[in-house]
Amino acid sequence: MSSTHSNEKQNCLSKRGNNIVTFKDDVILEAYMLWLKNPYDPESNPQGIINMNISENKTVGDILLPKLNEGIEITEEMLYYGDLTGRDYFRQAMADFLTKYFKASPRPVRKEELIGLCGASSIISIMGNAICDPEEYLLVPSPYYGTFASDLLFMSEARLVPVNLTSEIKEPNFEPFQLTVPALERALQQAVSQGKRVKGFLFSNPANPSGSYFSKQMIKDYLDFAHRHELHIIFDEIYYLSNHAPDADIISVLSMINELPDPERTHFIWAFSKDFASSGLRAGILWTQNSMLRAAVGACSRFSGISPPTQKQLTNMITDYDWLDNVYFPTMRRRLKESYEIVRQTLDELGIRYVIPKAGLFVWVDLIEFMPSVDLEGERKLWLSILENGVGTAPGYAFYCCERGWYRIIFALPVADVTLAMERFKNYLLKIRNLENRKLSVQERISTQ
Amino acid sequence: MSSTHSNEKQNCLSKRGNNIVTFKDDVILEAYMLWLKNPYDPESNPQGIINMNISENKTVGDILLPKLNEGIEITEEMLYYGDLTGRDYFRQAMADFLTKYFKASPRPVRKEELIGLCGASSIISIMGNAICDPEEYLLVPSPYYGTFASDLLFMSEARLVPVNLTSEIKEPNFEPFQLTVPALERALQQAVSQGKRVKGFLFSNPANPSGSYFSKQMIKDYLDFAHRHELHIIFDEIYYLSNHAPDADIISVLSMINELPDPERTHFIWAFSKDFASSGLRAGILWTQNSMLRAAVGACSRFSGISPPTQKQLTNMITDYDWLDNVYFPTMRRRLKESYEIVRQTLDELGIRYVIPKAGLFVWVDLIEFMPSVDLEGERKLWLSILENGVGTAPGYAFYCCERGWYRIIFALPVADVTLAMERFKNYLLKIRNLENRKLSVQERISTQ
Repeated sequence: MSSTHSNEKQNCLSKRGNNIVTFKDDVILEAYMLWLKNPYDPESNPQGIINMNISENKTVGDILLPKLNEGIEITEEMLYYGDLTGRDYFRQAMADFLTKYFKASPRPVRKEELIGLCGASSIISIMGNAICDPEEYLLVPSPYYGTFASDLLFMSEARLVPVNLTSEIKEPNFEPFQLTVPALERALQQAVSQGKRVKGFLFSNPANPSGSYFSKQMIKDYLDFAHRHELHIIFDEIYYLSNHAPDADIISVLSMINELPDPERTHFIWAFSKDFASSGLRAGILWTQNSMLRAAVGACSRFSGISPPTQKQLTNMITDYDWLDNVYFPTMRRRLKESYEIVRQTLDELGIRYVIPKAGLFVWVDLIEFMPSVDLEGERKLWLSILENGVGTAPGYAFYCCERGWYRIIFALPVADVTLAMERFKNYLLKIRNLENRKLSVQERISTQ
Repeated sequence: MSSTHSNEKQNCLSKRGNNIVTFKDDVILEAYMLWLKNPYDPESNPQGIINMNISENKTVGDILLPKLNEGIEITEEMLYYGDLTGRDYFRQAMADFLTKYFKASPRPVRKEELIGLCGASSIISIMGNAICDPEEYLLVPSPYYGTFASDLLFMSEARLVPVNLTSEIKEPNFEPFQLTVPALERALQQAVSQGKRVKGFLFSNPANPSGSYFSKQMIKDYLDFAHRHELHIIFDEIYYLSNHAPDADIISVLSMINELPDPERTHFIWAFSKDFASSGLRAGILWTQNSMLRAAVGACSRFSGISPPTQKQLTNMITDYDWLDNVYFPTMRRRLKESYEIVRQTLDELGIRYVIPKAGLFVWVDLIEFMPSVDLEGERKLWLSILENGVGTAPGYAFYCCERGWYRIIFALPVADVTLAMERFKNYLLKIRNLENRKLSVQERISTQ
């Protein structure tokens, strides 16, 4: 009876509506819901789960809030529609900010090239709609930010072709999970041979979950690859400013404006969520020189506009270069580094392998030797057992990683929380270690079962 | 050469992306862009166009702003994702507000039944996606709020079947453009016979552009019609509280919660845009008892979340019942009435026919006798010539009206602006009157050419 009723309800939605409801791949969300049942609080719930799953920077609220609260006032112009792609003052401030901090070169970013929408997810969804028809594809290096999948699927029915990367070090100076053009070519050819229509290539720089970034030559190679195949190339640079490693020299595509082989198909996304710890405020930006794409995305801005008071507050914040240069960025990076150091020490003590992160809020660690079995089930079990021991991480399959055993740990928490989390992590893992697993080759670790 | 270049750009977008860019039906937007070139300002541009096109209430900023600015502070919880379907305090405040002011009966609205998204357009787009697959249809009584078409088309590729209504008075107590069940049945049968898959019925109550509303019996009839055909029925009540006519007794579907023949397919939309003159703040609400639909729409909330500081400000406003009851609603309605009276007097002086509005920010007027020709071209020409004479209205075809000669005039402007606009309107129209057109029958006025 209840099953019939449930079916009736289902039938009331569209096919794609049902696909959304039954979409089960959002492991980050699953982890978040598990955390919500028992969230750690030093006072009220000291045994609760410490959330190292959701990628939010929780170390800088104390310096952000006074700035955001500075002289905020709702004025009459904010009450009305105005330009839903972003108020003029906001897009001008964003253009100047991107020019300065993303080192736009050889010319500044222009406000006419920008569209503000309520978050990077909105931009990906709406741009996905404008670039792909249903059942068309974007390439994405895997492991990748898992939510790309539903960002593209839910409203736009666009899909992803993973470019599967592994931890194998193929040559000197090669990094684990490094994206190469041959890997892109192979993935593209395979997709095409399966009849898939591939329209573009989407990737995060700095990379999520690895925290790596790409050299200028690599970016040029990717641009050439995209150009050669007439693919859109979308740079998601949402972690660009969270570059906590002192030697990080991350190259933004905005610094190569006159070196783009296919300017009409080259696009850039950034948002306040990560670098300004403001995922709640719902504000992101698209830069593209493609006026048709701007027209198509702009026409959809009424579905995803940024609240003008929020635009005003953010404008106030990003135009105070003195505060940015002398307070916010140094403090934010120092705190990220401090929190990361605690995780790093624990990993080093345990002899756990990880990709050294240069930017971002996370470290990508190899826990193969703690897994009960080297398959998806084992990866899931270890994730849940660490969670039961008070630390919420995210398993590699949340990022569609083809190689088992990798986990993402968010370290952007206050030092006390990270310290406690790492104590729990260490105490638990020491109990279950099985060093035999270390001997497995990368090939033996690849599994989708 | 430029044409080739333009084609290249076009080919870089998806089919639907190109459809968005080439979508030409948004006459309200066209009117807005024309107005933007020469906007009236009493000081700096006294000869400019007075905007009676965009449906915004510009009479209450002075009382809204102090309230919205009361004790606003961004707090740390607002910085993080949290529940993107609306903060708990916001949905609770909305539930209480809807219960009180929309006279929810026989039980209160529950916060669990609500999803907050950044505007009614977002809700229609995302709900359209969850109810319709591409190329599926919703019925809509025509004339209708023209933007419904692109709200449904751009991201969701859902479409509308118009239920064409005219000014013909068919029986005593019949109102012009009155929606009847036989008209719904005819439109549905015709659509089905053309192979169209119709999934629901969307309509505005109070109606836009006519400013009429529906009796309880009529609403029951529509509910029964929808139930009989297993159609979703979506009540857009975005003008419900802008009921400036003293005798208006508008029935919200929320007042009939236990009389819904098909609760799973009955949905309600409202937003702050009109009744709180805050289209810029991007905040709307969906009420539905269908948990599957809530799940599908909620999963898309990250594309269209409301900024939490805005949620907080709105919460502060809608929980101050004393201010609402004694300041805001009486003032807002009195000012709407005052501004409407100026338009009404002018129309009466000119002997122009109109639908007496009970609610909303507009009056729907019959300017047939001023048109150079009784067809689309004539309707457009008159609209543009009134615009050239300093008054921006919206022609009937912006609302997909099948009967030529109707125009929507927004009167929700300060008294001085409305007075000046009506002087211009009167002076111009008196010059071009052709009373012969009055003799045309409704049949002679129906045209899509």
